[in-house]
Amino acid sequence: MRLLEERIAREATVLAPDVLRVDMFLNHLIDTALLDAMGREFYRLFEAERGRITKILTVEASGIAIACAAAAYFKGATGAMVPVLFAKKGVISRTLDSETYAAVIRSFTKDSLTNVSVAKRFLSTEDNILIIDDFLANGAAVRGLREIIAQAGAQLLGVGIAIEKGFQPGGAELRAEGVHLESLAIVERMEPLQFREQN
Amino acid sequence: MRLLEERIAREATVLAPDVLRVDMFLNHLIDTALLDAMGREFYRLFEAERGRITKILTVEASGIAIACAAAAYFKGATGAMVPVLFAKKGVISRTLDSETYAAVIRSFTKDSLTNVSVAKRFLSTEDNILIIDDFLANGAAVRGLREIIAQAGAQLLGVGIAIEKGFQPGGAELRAEGVHLESLAIVERMEPLQFREQN
Repeated sequence: MRLLEERIAREATVLAPDVLRVDMFLNHLIDTALLDAMGREFYRLFEAERGRITKILTVEASGIAIACAAAAYFKGATGAMVPVLFAKKGVISRTLDSETYAAVIRSFTKDSLTNVSVAKRFLSTEDNILIIDDFLANGAAVRGLREIIAQAGAQLLGVGIAIEKGFQPGGAELRAEGVHLESLAIVERMEPLQFREQN
Repeated sequence: MRLLEERIAREATVLAPDVLRVDMFLNHLIDTALLDAMGREFYRLFEAERGRITKILTVEASGIAIACAAAAYFKGATGAMVPVLFAKKGVISRTLDSETYAAVIRSFTKDSLTNVSVAKRFLSTEDNILIIDDFLANGAAVRGLREIIAQAGAQLLGVGIAIEKGFQPGGAELRAEGVHLESLAIVERMEPLQFREQN
């Protein structure tokens, strides 16, 4: 997606060999016009699944805005807008169910382990899921969400990522496993910045 | 807002005398059609500030979707969509600035203290801020965000809340302090559920 690539090239900063800071338009301050364009592009990329997707699944916090932007373009089989379900991080809150599907996600960037969970009553065998997230590097977050989807007996239709780090293994591994993975921008190299050619 | 009140009445559950669970349409699973309607209603309520608002400020995680839904309706002085800035919770991440405005928010519901912070380069004396958040009870989150706005020398134009607990003191206190506060639904009583009449 040219618009996102241009934005990364112009504004993102490399903080470490594997850390790209995009908090000026995506992760802290959100450019809502760009966000909407990203949602529209996810719709174009997953249009074949139109009418089949029952829920868009993401992880709090930075995935939420992107997932909602995509959801605005997807309608389910009934014509209603597709809901967004976001996995919660950390300990179970008392305003949430104790009955959850859960997985552990390892963040290499933050060097931490995070529990993510989804209330069981929001995922079922009837669900066809599109995962949306901001970054893909080693694929840990997607694997965690896929584990949750499997626990529920739901189906994974595809994975949409804003920025994939093509020099890290997650994307290649998931594609090799047959996952329909689409990334709006794939960073092949950080310095000098280089993107993978895509249609 | 009738649509939100009806939804609360039909689906929300009371977990404790002060805890209303709305994770079936707002806090975990997000009804994106309702979300859009909420964004439109915030625009109606703050239309007088149209063109003046430079940023919508919220707190991760559950405020993000609502803030983005509102931002879709607001355009700034230049005609561009208003960006959303979300305060980060917890420790400073290495993908974020060390230079932050920060405040401590006390959650009575969760009985916890949370650090919230915003990178200094995203708030300035030029900014006119609309705060959007999901819940207002004792007003701690709004006070924390207001403190951050004051640290930056920015101006607070108003506060938009999805669900205000009218039986807790935050709303009355903020209005008494002259804050332009608008809530889409004000729960006066939990059991039996009763809403404050609004225009």
